[in-house]
Amino acid sequence: MLNHQDTICAPATANGIGAISVIRVSGNKSWEIVSKIFSKSFDGKESHTAHFGTISDDDKLIDEVLITIFAEGRSFTGEESAEIACHGSPFIQQQIIKVLTKNGCRMASPGEFTQRAFLNGKMDLSQAEAVADLIAAQSRSSHDIALKQLRGGFSSELKDLREQLINFASLVELELDFAEEDVEFADRTELKALVTSVLAYVKRLAESFELGNAIKEGVPVAIVGAPNTGKSTLLNQLLGDDRAIVSNIAGTTRDVIEETLNIEGILFRLIDTAGIREGAEEIEAMGIERSKEKIDQAKIVLCLADASVDKSVEDVKAWVAELEGTYPNKRIQLIVNKSDLSASSEGIAISAKEGENIESLKSWMVNSVTEGFDMANETIVSNARHYDALMKTAEALDKALAGLETNVSADWVAIDIRQAMFELGTITGDISTDDLLGNIFSKFCIGK
Amino acid sequence: MLNHQDTICAPATANGIGAISVIRVSGNKSWEIVSKIFSKSFDGKESHTAHFGTISDDDKLIDEVLITIFAEGRSFTGEESAEIACHGSPFIQQQIIKVLTKNGCRMASPGEFTQRAFLNGKMDLSQAEAVADLIAAQSRSSHDIALKQLRGGFSSELKDLREQLINFASLVELELDFAEEDVEFADRTELKALVTSVLAYVKRLAESFELGNAIKEGVPVAIVGAPNTGKSTLLNQLLGDDRAIVSNIAGTTRDVIEETLNIEGILFRLIDTAGIREGAEEIEAMGIERSKEKIDQAKIVLCLADASVDKSVEDVKAWVAELEGTYPNKRIQLIVNKSDLSASSEGIAISAKEGENIESLKSWMVNSVTEGFDMANETIVSNARHYDALMKTAEALDKALAGLETNVSADWVAIDIRQAMFELGTITGDISTDDLLGNIFSKFCIGK
Repeated sequence: MLNHQDTICAPATANGIGAISVIRVSGNKSWEIVSKIFSKSFDGKESHTAHFGTISDDDKLIDEVLITIFAEGRSFTGEESAEIACHGSPFIQQQIIKVLTKNGCRMASPGEFTQRAFLNGKMDLSQAEAVADLIAAQSRSSHDIALKQLRGGFSSELKDLREQLINFASLVELELDFAEEDVEFADRTELKALVTSVLAYVKRLAESFELGNAIKEGVPVAIVGAPNTGKSTLLNQLLGDDRAIVSNIAGTTRDVIEETLNIEGILFRLIDTAGIREGAEEIEAMGIERSKEKIDQAKIVLCLADASVDKSVEDVKAWVAELEGTYPNKRIQLIVNKSDLSASSEGIAISAKEGENIESLKSWMVNSVTEGFDMANETIVSNARHYDALMKTAEALDKALAGLETNVSADWVAIDIRQAMFELGTITGDISTDDLLGNIFSKFCIGK
Repeated sequence: MLNHQDTICAPATANGIGAISVIRVSGNKSWEIVSKIFSKSFDGKESHTAHFGTISDDDKLIDEVLITIFAEGRSFTGEESAEIACHGSPFIQQQIIKVLTKNGCRMASPGEFTQRAFLNGKMDLSQAEAVADLIAAQSRSSHDIALKQLRGGFSSELKDLREQLINFASLVELELDFAEEDVEFADRTELKALVTSVLAYVKRLAESFELGNAIKEGVPVAIVGAPNTGKSTLLNQLLGDDRAIVSNIAGTTRDVIEETLNIEGILFRLIDTAGIREGAEEIEAMGIERSKEKIDQAKIVLCLADASVDKSVEDVKAWVAELEGTYPNKRIQLIVNKSDLSASSEGIAISAKEGENIESLKSWMVNSVTEGFDMANETIVSNARHYDALMKTAEALDKALAGLETNVSADWVAIDIRQAMFELGTITGDISTDDLLGNIFSKFCIGK
């Protein structure tokens, strides 16, 4: 466990040159340490006030800065804090960090500010995790999921579930107290209905992870088809107005060359576009073998047929049927290109060259990702750890339900319910271990 | 001229992902526009206070932010301002900029915040230029020069010079008023002494530019010598502890591969280190021809001789003498390597392999850059525009002095003095044109 008595510091803004940079300081000696190197004292100053002055290392002037101070209980971490806005030079940042550590600060570990916010009860664990997701969000939909989670939307739903389970557990345990008298206090039908309803909700949340994960990571799309069906032209049409500018984030580098596309706030990753551009995958008549690898990685597969070529539509249709059999969890779609040359009523008819019907294709892509979920109002789970915990919760509830149905004794049911509550508790951090916290926060950047 | 009635906005922190990013807003509608998209009102709030809340685009929540407000006259620009600290995601920054512009802000031009600070009298032009230099500074010495300039050290010296010239001009013009009476009010000897003293000071400032520019850009160093004299070993010894980490700044990419070295706060750029490592320049016996290009770019040339090889020291000594003749403005130094193998009393004797005497070499390098200037107390000019203006000032003063010496009439002398004052005034911006300002501030980044 980290020592939370220390006062810590770290750069909070992105690396590099800018007009200003911000350095965060947090811990119960923040004001004392910062005022030692600052030209002004914070004596009698109020929380949330900004002060212009200079920072020096003994007599050596380092920079003109603006320092905003936060009182204990009113900061991001919940601790006494200060934010130093200096000129945006890496050299100056380095000098200020140096003089802060010289005067009693410790350099923060990755995620330590957010971890302190969690430990001080400023946010639960799922909210803390949302901070990292929010910062990394590159599309409207991933942003919205993370922001809702940060604002406590997910936490309050989990709290509701937990309360229902506590309610249930208390009924069961009441029965336990009177076990020797063989009294059945709670109506078992009612209990079953309650567990069934909670279970359905937990499963629904777990199911949303597939969508949430796709949105967070970007939805992988493969464009496959025989040579000269227009794959490259379609790629360019899709990229036309919606090409996404994606910044590099540690851990998100992909193995294959990709283009990204932002349609209605959802990020799509077009797999192996170098292959498409170079026609590298177009070996066999249908490109099936070479396409297999791409299809394996994709969530959406666009199979291109050429309406101007005899039997092409028929062949690709058969291929689509075959793929649907092999990959029941992928969305496989027949796209009939050069549809201006021939009237085809199958699949989605487009003209990649003329840009006809591309909008319909895009709408289909968005729908195929979001269908079955109400993106605006429903909670979408996007964190693998939460998904695991939800699956374990569901497993325990399944056992509880089976117990109720086979009339096992109340104490066995109570164990399963407590297990379900335990698993739910790991999401919000009501249940946590040092290992779990270390694992979560070490993935944050320094300064968060 | 830009419209300074507008309220402008721009990201102020470096591009990329961080814990937080800051967006600056400046102009007389800053509070009004920001409060339109913020969850709280600034009514009755004081300058320099920070407010936590949410930013929304109509009903659509964008982020939780901390907004610090600054009243007119008390901000960086001198205008009513606000700084929005949001989560450090490029996506969120983009959304906030979008909603700000939708509500009446204009995206700032490069350097527009600093330009407004200048136009509103918060700083003079040389101070505004120092903002950019300070942000780009990568070493202690370039940082110190820029910070001194930002703090007004240079400005106040220029003000002193200007006052002396005004004093002088008033004496000369008094004489002019009585010209018809052929009266000589001012003692011409005294006048000459005054101009001579100002001229000497202006020339001293101009001379410091060579040092200032070298410090700002890094001092280029060439290591040359015959094959196997130990150039690569010396390079590694020099880089040992002092290798500088230099960030990429637009406009500072170099043509040749370089290593940088920070000795006592001064940045040295070792030219064409790839050549040294690969031995690519080691063709002829002395490598003279191939070294020529490197020497042309260098300010300091280290000529390596090998004490263990017959006649090597003699040969290199002759070469140094020749180079000194060709390049009177470069520092050419004989370095005798493998000095543990032979007692040499010439040049700087080192053992690159054993690391002997490397510190002496480093001290010599620092001294050869700074000698003749008192870095701690003297003003060092590092801006080419200032250097040009100082040279023109000196030229005008030279003419004035010549006029005084040849007893030309006072009105001619007065013209030269006014010209000198004009040139000095362009440095601080007392004299400025839209073209000049445009030229200076367009080189800033957006957000500064």
